[in-house]
This record gives sequence, structure tokens and C-alpha cells, in this order.
Amino acid sequence: MKLMICTSNKKKFEEISSMLKALNIEFVKPPYELDVEETANTFLSNAYLKARAYYEAFGIPALADDSGLVIEALGGRPGVYSARFYKEEFGSHVLKEEDYNLPKDDLNNLKVLRLLENEENRRAKFVSAIVVMMSNSQGIFGEGELKGYIAKEPSGSLGFGYDPIFIPEGYDVSLANIEHKNEISHRRKALNALFDMLKKVL
Amino acid sequence: MKLMICTSNKKKFEEISSMLKALNIEFVKPPYELDVEETANTFLSNAYLKARAYYEAFGIPALADDSGLVIEALGGRPGVYSARFYKEEFGSHVLKEEDYNLPKDDLNNLKVLRLLENEENRRAKFVSAIVVMMSNSQGIFGEGELKGYIAKEPSGSLGFGYDPIFIPEGYDVSLANIEHKNEISHRRKALNALFDMLKKVL
Repeated sequence: MKLMICTSNKKKFEEISSMLKALNIEFVKPPYELDVEETANTFLSNAYLKARAYYEAFGIPALADDSGLVIEALGGRPGVYSARFYKEEFGSHVLKEEDYNLPKDDLNNLKVLRLLENEENRRAKFVSAIVVMMSNSQGIFGEGELKGYIAKEPSGSLGFGYDPIFIPEGYDVSLANIEHKNEISHRRKALNALFDMLKKVL
Repeated sequence: MKLMICTSNKKKFEEISSMLKALNIEFVKPPYELDVEETANTFLSNAYLKARAYYEAFGIPALADDSGLVIEALGGRPGVYSARFYKEEFGSHVLKEEDYNLPKDDLNNLKVLRLLENEENRRAKFVSAIVVMMSNSQGIFGEGELKGYIAKEPSGSLGFGYDPIFIPEGYDVSLANIEHKNEISHRRKALNALFDMLKKVL
């Protein structure tokens, strides 16, 4: 069987295909990227909309993921808006005009830190959902979580996104300091969950 | 294996369990109904939120569905708002105060017919999504569609919901006139799609 991994990110393609390689399937890249709007309000549904769009465009089983950060004291935000949190109206008062010169990831992190400035509850989790559309009416999915806390300030240079301000449970440094991040990540857990399901349906 | 069918509707429970009976699993009803908000903007995601809530509450594999009517000329509405369309702000100008004395289903149908009064494009489809949460991080799903048209006026007394104003492709009467509705329905198609997946993962 062929499985299309719907990402234009090379590292993600490698991570996913190496994790699933024991399944003896052929991994293919999309011939071109589709512009799928991630308009849903759950991670699962965003992954589903993407997988479905690729299945419909190219006609082979398609795997897509969505992930983000869920912060308890912010009512689950940034959630499905993780990548574009700096642009969201929610909490926009904490950003000043000059902040917008920062790179997008830094701006997202700054916004989170300022919103949590006087907040004692710093509990948060990274969440990942991965959907495989097997036919035009059938699919499977796997999910993973990494629980932790929001740091007081950013640190570390590995990883990307919110990694510098996220301290996983059982650690005292941020994810951007952890070399083996990929082994403990929410996406790895989701891939493990998916692996079991794929093995059965193939 | 036990499978919890998350519905308080007896007919739905019977239909689903009889469709899946060849799988040799034990179907159980939820000990009590959970109040799960259907806040997602896709059918799949609503079914998922429901299945997940039941899995988390009772700890056994849980099946849940969501379905609705998608009308092309209304930009996909009523969609996930099918059951409560009469209450939606969209198009509320076509309903008068006295209309609100009607039963909910009649009011929904009236609203659709008035919104499409001068509309030539009457294409629509019923959509059903069924999700089974197999563990706290794994699931499968099946989907089904029934394509058709919105009638000029309601007719027929079988079925419920939008059935009296929906004419399936290949028919010249509404779904509320079709005795074998269950054999051609979107839910039946979704159940068929799910059946194949369940067979493999059990």
C-alpha cells in the first residue's frame, strides 16, 4: 500500500515515515501542497479536513496531523490557534506595536508569558492528533499528549514553536533544552497509537 | 468485546446494533446520558467529542454519530446546526413570531423552504459521521452521504427532521414517503463503511 504523508516539512516526513516503517508500506509525498484552511475547532477535525482534502485530490490513503498547546489558565488557548496566536484578538492588549517586529514564534511565546504573568496555575499540555483517511468514507486516528508547565521565561535553542517556554512533567528544563524531544513528544505518542491501528487495518 | 452505543434513541440503538451484529460483539447502552455539547463545526468532530466523552466516563469502546443536512445554496447550512437551525441568527428574518408555535422540525423545514423560495439551485445532501473511540487515544470512523434536492413543499409522514422536504436523487418523492428509508440512508452508508473498519480492528 501507498500512504501519502501530507506535509511539506521534510523533518516531519522523515520522523513519521521512520516511525511507521515496520508496516512495510510505501510513503509518498504530495505532488504539490494543497492550501487547506484549518478552520475546525478540534485538533482531530483539522487533521481530518487536511487528510480528506489530500485523499480527494490524489486518491490514495492520506495521513495528516494537527497539534498545538493547551493552557489550563487560558481556558484551553491557544489550542487550534497555536500557530497564529499572536494574531488572535484574545489577549491582544498585552502586545505592543514594537513587539510585532519579533519572529512569529517569539511573539507567540511573549504573548503567553505576558498573559500568565500573575498566574499561579501554569499547567499546560501539547496535544497531537493524526488522521489517516483510508478511503473516501473511512479513517483511523491516533492521539497523543505531553503534559507540563509554562516556564517563567523562554530558554533553550532546540525545537521550535512553544518549546522554549514549555517544561514537560518530570523535567526542570524547557523542551527546547531536551535532545531526545522526539522520543517523548505528543506527536510520537500519537504516532505510536496510530501504528497499532494501521497494523490492524492494512 | 463490548461496544457502547451512545444514544438514548431506542430506534437508533436497534438500527446500529442490528447492522453490526455480524461482528459478534456485545452492544451496551450507556448507564446514563451525558450532556455533551455539540460545539464542533464538522459532523466528524461532533461524533468524536461525544464518543470521547462516553469513553472517558465509562471506560469501554464507545460509538457515537452526528448527522445533518447540507444545502448548497445556503453555503452548506444548516450543517452541524441542523437540529437547531430555527434558532440560528442566519436567515432568522424569514420567520415570524407566530411561526414559533410550530413543532421544532416543522419550523426548521419552514425556514429552509422560505430561504430557498426564489432559489433554483436546490441541491442538498444528508451527511452522517460515526466515530468509535477504541481506547483513550485511538479511534476509527465511517461516513455516509445521501444526495438529493430540497422539495418545494413538505410531504409524507414517515421519518422525521428534514425528511419531508428532502427528495433523494433518483426518486420523485420526499424521504418521508419512502418506506425503505433506512436502507438508503446516509447513516446506513456510514454504518457500512464503519463495519469494514471494525471488522479489521477487532
